[in-house]
Amino acid sequence: MAQSPFAMTSAAERVTVVGTGLIGTSIGLAAVRVGYAVTGWDADAEIAARAVELGGFEAAATLEDAVRAAGMVVVATPIPTIADLVARILVAAPEAVVTDVGSVKSNVVAEVLEAVEPDEVGRFVPGHPMGGSERSGPEHASASVVDGIVWVVTPPPTAAKAAIERLEAFIGRIGARVVRMDPARHDRLVAFVSHLPQAASTALMDVAATEEADEPEILLLAAGGFRDLTRLASSNPALWSDILLSNREAIAEALEIYARRLGSLRTQILEGDGRAVETTFDRAKSARLRLAAKPTVRAGVAVLQVPVPDRPGSLAALTAALGEGGVNIEDLQIVHSPEGGRGTVHLTVAAEAAEAAASVLAANDFDPTRIA
Amino acid sequence: MAQSPFAMTSAAERVTVVGTGLIGTSIGLAAVRVGYAVTGWDADAEIAARAVELGGFEAAATLEDAVRAAGMVVVATPIPTIADLVARILVAAPEAVVTDVGSVKSNVVAEVLEAVEPDEVGRFVPGHPMGGSERSGPEHASASVVDGIVWVVTPPPTAAKAAIERLEAFIGRIGARVVRMDPARHDRLVAFVSHLPQAASTALMDVAATEEADEPEILLLAAGGFRDLTRLASSNPALWSDILLSNREAIAEALEIYARRLGSLRTQILEGDGRAVETTFDRAKSARLRLAAKPTVRAGVAVLQVPVPDRPGSLAALTAALGEGGVNIEDLQIVHSPEGGRGTVHLTVAAEAAEAAASVLAANDFDPTRIA
Repeated sequence: MAQSPFAMTSAAERVTVVGTGLIGTSIGLAAVRVGYAVTGWDADAEIAARAVELGGFEAAATLEDAVRAAGMVVVATPIPTIADLVARILVAAPEAVVTDVGSVKSNVVAEVLEAVEPDEVGRFVPGHPMGGSERSGPEHASASVVDGIVWVVTPPPTAAKAAIERLEAFIGRIGARVVRMDPARHDRLVAFVSHLPQAASTALMDVAATEEADEPEILLLAAGGFRDLTRLASSNPALWSDILLSNREAIAEALEIYARRLGSLRTQILEGDGRAVETTFDRAKSARLRLAAKPTVRAGVAVLQVPVPDRPGSLAALTAALGEGGVNIEDLQIVHSPEGGRGTVHLTVAAEAAEAAASVLAANDFDPTRIA
Repeated sequence: MAQSPFAMTSAAERVTVVGTGLIGTSIGLAAVRVGYAVTGWDADAEIAARAVELGGFEAAATLEDAVRAAGMVVVATPIPTIADLVARILVAAPEAVVTDVGSVKSNVVAEVLEAVEPDEVGRFVPGHPMGGSERSGPEHASASVVDGIVWVVTPPPTAAKAAIERLEAFIGRIGARVVRMDPARHDRLVAFVSHLPQAASTALMDVAATEEADEPEILLLAAGGFRDLTRLASSNPALWSDILLSNREAIAEALEIYARRLGSLRTQILEGDGRAVETTFDRAKSARLRLAAKPTVRAGVAVLQVPVPDRPGSLAALTAALGEGGVNIEDLQIVHSPEGGRGTVHLTVAAEAAEAAASVLAANDFDPTRIA
């Protein structure tokens, strides 16, 4: 049925979101925005009711009722619950393409393939929208959470071509951007750019905290760089434990490669090989400068360094000047002296806006220097 | 002579800054501000001339002329040049206490003790002002660079008590805050909170860049956390090579402890020990939440999470509201969706300003949530 062009068109008009937390409700809202009829269901009836009310979704008494007439079902629930739900939904919703939004894929896919009948499995196409928010609950959902984000689609070999195409068309229609890759590759890449940074940040904060027990003054000497590196360490422990354990092989590999790189740097330093240390730093610096604030503007961003007094209103004057000048701020970081006095703002703007930003700032008594 | 109370008072009126780059000139300006007569000298005559003009310093033809009548000489030159300069200055300036501002201490102290006559060495008191700016040159100097910063004073056993007291009085008088510790302890602490984060950031960016060669899409999946962790990787390679090599033993130890911590986390993940992973994350999270934006407000900060549209002017509206409400922003970070659409701002304010910040924002149609 999923292969019939007629069914593809008509059934796709109905979307069901299973799990109406922040991300599920946001996807539902983005679908409503472009004209889909959306049903919302959650194992927690109260959360479902709030999402239905906030999102203008249709309500349903049971999971089976919620998905029966759907052309697209989005499962937005915690990783350990996905496989069972997908199996039930594929049976209850014979017309539907079923996708999930879990942030680790190989594990989920293996569990689904084990739980699902072979003749249903073609309609399961897993995915990972790389967006969201650190808030939770349907109250904080918004269609804009989906706007322009990268939504990785990770079809296993079992997925039917038509089902993949239907999911990708849906994603594009609600405002996100499809990047297709296989589940293992997705897991390997996020291990490096998402899970490894999380582990590196947590371990660094943990090391400093352990040292602090003997050296109470250690954090007095911690400046902005340390704060940057440890900001992720305040993430949700239970959530991260789930993610890291679900992607353990890829993360173990990334951690090993990282430890090896730290080890070579350590050897270069101990041996006093300044040229080798400088080469490593040069290479990393070039790579960092290629990395922009956001992928859309990665091709060209500029970073302006602007001293600002550390008092109420000074940042307002800076951002107001840019806003009035029509310059969008891609990224902004306050670099404090470790103990106040004044700060420096690192301002990232699209490269084509760099001159405008600099002249707007200069006209408002700031003294910007382009540093990248 | 340094021990004579009379000499302490009168000679202390004259300050000489040797090395009139950003930090040296800033210290000179902070001294001028509180009434010291300041002489500026630099091995680069053009830089010295610019600093003299900008700072209202007195000029001198030679290093010896510059320091002869000084009560306090601040050497603010690159690490490899410090020992020789200090030795020359102690001879040429018989009344002066001589200090430096190098960011690594044991190495410098050992070199100075080797270069200096035993009967001069009591007047050498090394230090490390933990401030500055990422800009360089006297043009970007400002007395406010010194305001409220932690200035570590690291007297070796050779330093005379009176000399230490004179330096500490000077530091307090120009607006900074003295923290005294021995050179090895300083080096060990900055290895953990400054040098290790730098190495961790550089190695992470280097690993991702190496992986990117085979996986061009890897950085497409890199979100805000990765950017936070790698921001330091764009620091100056030559400067950092100097610092890391000057503090190699302490950094090697810090890197080893860090690699060991990453290794245990890796084992916990590979063994699927979710409880252990969660415990590590909990401990790091508690420590991170104790760490504030700035040491002065560490005792109490609050972090507000505020969704903002990703378009010109939206940050201006937020910061303007806070400015008008008299709320000082201690830190601000934009957390983007990886590909735009909207952003979230993490706003750090002093704890006692949290309620004011939240109500000011709510009154201006923002929807802040206190997350720490």
